[in-house]
Amino acid sequence: MKAYNKINEAVLVSLQAIVGEKNVVTDADKLVTYSQDEVTDSRYQHLPEAAVFPETAEQVAEIIKLANRELIPVTPRGAGTGLAAGAAPIYGGIVLGLEKMNKILEVNAENMYMVVEAGVKTQDVQTAAKEAGLLYAGDPSSGDNCFIGGNIATNAGGNKAIKYGTTRQQVYAIEIVTPTGEITELGGLLNKSTSGYSLEQLVIGSEGTLGIITKATLKLIPLPQYKMDLLAVFPDAEAAIDTVFKLLKAGVDPTSLEYMDNGAVKICARYLKESLPHQQDGNYLIITIETNDEDALDDKAVQIDEICNANGAIATLVPDSKKIWAARKAFGDAVREESYIHSSEDMVVPVKHLPHAMKEIAAICAKHSAVGRTVAHAGDGNIHLNILQGDIPAEAWPTKIDEILEELLAFTYRIGGKMSGEHGIGSKRAKWMHKFADPVQLKMMQAIKKAVDPNLILNPGTVFLME
Amino acid sequence: MKAYNKINEAVLVSLQAIVGEKNVVTDADKLVTYSQDEVTDSRYQHLPEAAVFPETAEQVAEIIKLANRELIPVTPRGAGTGLAAGAAPIYGGIVLGLEKMNKILEVNAENMYMVVEAGVKTQDVQTAAKEAGLLYAGDPSSGDNCFIGGNIATNAGGNKAIKYGTTRQQVYAIEIVTPTGEITELGGLLNKSTSGYSLEQLVIGSEGTLGIITKATLKLIPLPQYKMDLLAVFPDAEAAIDTVFKLLKAGVDPTSLEYMDNGAVKICARYLKESLPHQQDGNYLIITIETNDEDALDDKAVQIDEICNANGAIATLVPDSKKIWAARKAFGDAVREESYIHSSEDMVVPVKHLPHAMKEIAAICAKHSAVGRTVAHAGDGNIHLNILQGDIPAEAWPTKIDEILEELLAFTYRIGGKMSGEHGIGSKRAKWMHKFADPVQLKMMQAIKKAVDPNLILNPGTVFLME
Repeated sequence: MKAYNKINEAVLVSLQAIVGEKNVVTDADKLVTYSQDEVTDSRYQHLPEAAVFPETAEQVAEIIKLANRELIPVTPRGAGTGLAAGAAPIYGGIVLGLEKMNKILEVNAENMYMVVEAGVKTQDVQTAAKEAGLLYAGDPSSGDNCFIGGNIATNAGGNKAIKYGTTRQQVYAIEIVTPTGEITELGGLLNKSTSGYSLEQLVIGSEGTLGIITKATLKLIPLPQYKMDLLAVFPDAEAAIDTVFKLLKAGVDPTSLEYMDNGAVKICARYLKESLPHQQDGNYLIITIETNDEDALDDKAVQIDEICNANGAIATLVPDSKKIWAARKAFGDAVREESYIHSSEDMVVPVKHLPHAMKEIAAICAKHSAVGRTVAHAGDGNIHLNILQGDIPAEAWPTKIDEILEELLAFTYRIGGKMSGEHGIGSKRAKWMHKFADPVQLKMMQAIKKAVDPNLILNPGTVFLME
Repeated sequence: MKAYNKINEAVLVSLQAIVGEKNVVTDADKLVTYSQDEVTDSRYQHLPEAAVFPETAEQVAEIIKLANRELIPVTPRGAGTGLAAGAAPIYGGIVLGLEKMNKILEVNAENMYMVVEAGVKTQDVQTAAKEAGLLYAGDPSSGDNCFIGGNIATNAGGNKAIKYGTTRQQVYAIEIVTPTGEITELGGLLNKSTSGYSLEQLVIGSEGTLGIITKATLKLIPLPQYKMDLLAVFPDAEAAIDTVFKLLKAGVDPTSLEYMDNGAVKICARYLKESLPHQQDGNYLIITIETNDEDALDDKAVQIDEICNANGAIATLVPDSKKIWAARKAFGDAVREESYIHSSEDMVVPVKHLPHAMKEIAAICAKHSAVGRTVAHAGDGNIHLNILQGDIPAEAWPTKIDEILEELLAFTYRIGGKMSGEHGIGSKRAKWMHKFADPVQLKMMQAIKKAVDPNLILNPGTVFLME
């Protein structure tokens, strides 16, 4: 690994000259905030030497040029809602926060796009689209806090990806500052293009290692006119999971197809101090359907009811939508309340292997006497397994969780899965990339990183390590 | 540019040892076939020294390793239906044809995917999907001839991209042989992933410069149950184009939204020796709609009829589907019949600029007294303008067409467009990349190319030139 320099007084003065004194933080107390994202395990938290908050892409570019000259690592940061320690500056240096670049620059309803700075909250994007009578289809569970720039950097998925795709599919163009400090707009307001390499596709999901996203042009689509949430309750977890593929095969075309195991249902009810339907023994499938035809909506609902009931549901209800989605979205907080230290996993598997994978995952946790709470973007084969430290002694936890993860990931890759569906590798999973990613591909990724970031300035240690 | 070596006797013997004598072609007469794709202008045709036809990915890998050792360029070739001279071996060397890797390996109807070798015809992919009761949504106009591998290498669009996306969206995974001769599968049978850089997205559309695609896992989707083609005929070309965005805005969600100007209608009718509706003065919008509900189909048809008629259509018919699509797909052949030498262009512009762009394009052609025939994947903003050599003297043509193209492309980039929507840059447009692509991005592309193909073995001179 490259040897980086520390931030000295001269560099600090230069940073202040670029962004103004008020936008440079060096106070140790305040820097703690920028040492971590939502990963609670202190092993993945690292103090930066400074946090800087540029207000324009030009300032970002100046910072990156300075960092290249002085060999100081730069870790871009959105809202810090990541779940893989991708915003933790593992080599110190500069955390570059995008929170002051938070303007919605254009909502073009006529032509169905929106231009936003990277630090706009995803929820604000959704709201602005809706106010224009349109839909922004990205919908991560952390939408009320996370930034759109972070969504793009991690190719966030969320609750509607089964119908609308991940963030990758919601983006026309991104303005980035390259690892060498140049500003360029990748992609375009275009429905298609084969005009050289798809650099926008490469940068999306690269977790701030190939460019800092400063601005995005997002796709908006017509708002579906009719919408319905259904809640299918299964006493048997396996039966719930088995039903997922049957719904997909039937052409139900759900907007959401979410799974919550009974443990997840219980802790979310407790966290929200709410009573949820059949919370004592119910495993949930939350199914959202949308159409532009009222009759078609009813027909789909009947079809879903029949399929779920034929496959072991004890009830298929029209739930209190607000309550049921609040429960689903409270999962992360509820887990944290149950066990502050936990390992939040995000494996994605071929949907056909989902039933098998759920059983195997439960077996691996049981074998290690570990408690796992599970929800899944089931339609996508994307499993959020949170393994609780719970009663495991703090000193035993690092070894224990690594043993469990090694088994889990080995199994995941054996069935054609990958370690992250939407949270990303971050710095937390980088070591596992070296164990489980195809070595030919890892080598290609490293070569690409080195080619576009010769000084390894941008978010080093995230996604993978360099020699 | 790298200096390459010529193929000597020893290399030839090695090639024969890898693929067998019958799969190595060196006969000058036969090599002519492999000097070109569908670009008829001899300036873009180059004889290879040998054409080789591997039957397995392992053989492809051996050839690439040999080429690296001996510094011989390798140009991968599908069916040779490309329109940008991307398969023309401009530095000679080896043309590597995928035509013997033409097996459909698996059609998995239960789990809705298909695994095919790169040399399978796209039409055969479509047919196999249909036989399994499913849809493969890629649909390039050259579908009855082109190979799926070429579709992926160019990120082919076609007539259904407005609804289903380009080839990029139809692909779960690709097996490639890297530029250094290693076999690896990019992507996976997964609905989402953020597990390192999206190498599959980078390689798709890279026109054989970053890897040779040997196998693909393709997405299949449920077949829509109801389908209707509509033909809206406009006496005024501008009115036809103005209607495109109105249809999109109305949420019609067309599967196809194709434009043919009257010149195109006339030459296609003549080429097919058919009579087409209103062929004397009609500009066409061909609109396909698909639903899973018969009533919804009728409702959409009524809606389309109303919108088109309100915007100047003299008729909105339910045409003879076979005949109308035959006409649309005959465009390339009809142009060739009219003027063997022509420049086949493929600009893509923001859909909002389509009306303006069509007028400007016509004006540029008129200014240069050049005849242009135009069809468009109008819903995508993707314009196929074929500029005919026609009466322009052969010796004046190269200069004249370059003058026209320079104006056309300058205009295209000025309004946020790009030079290729789906045909690719190939070797034909490489020089224009150096003029019109963002220099920062071109530099990134070149750095990536050099990083993964240090000897510049794979399809050099395609997409861009190297120092």
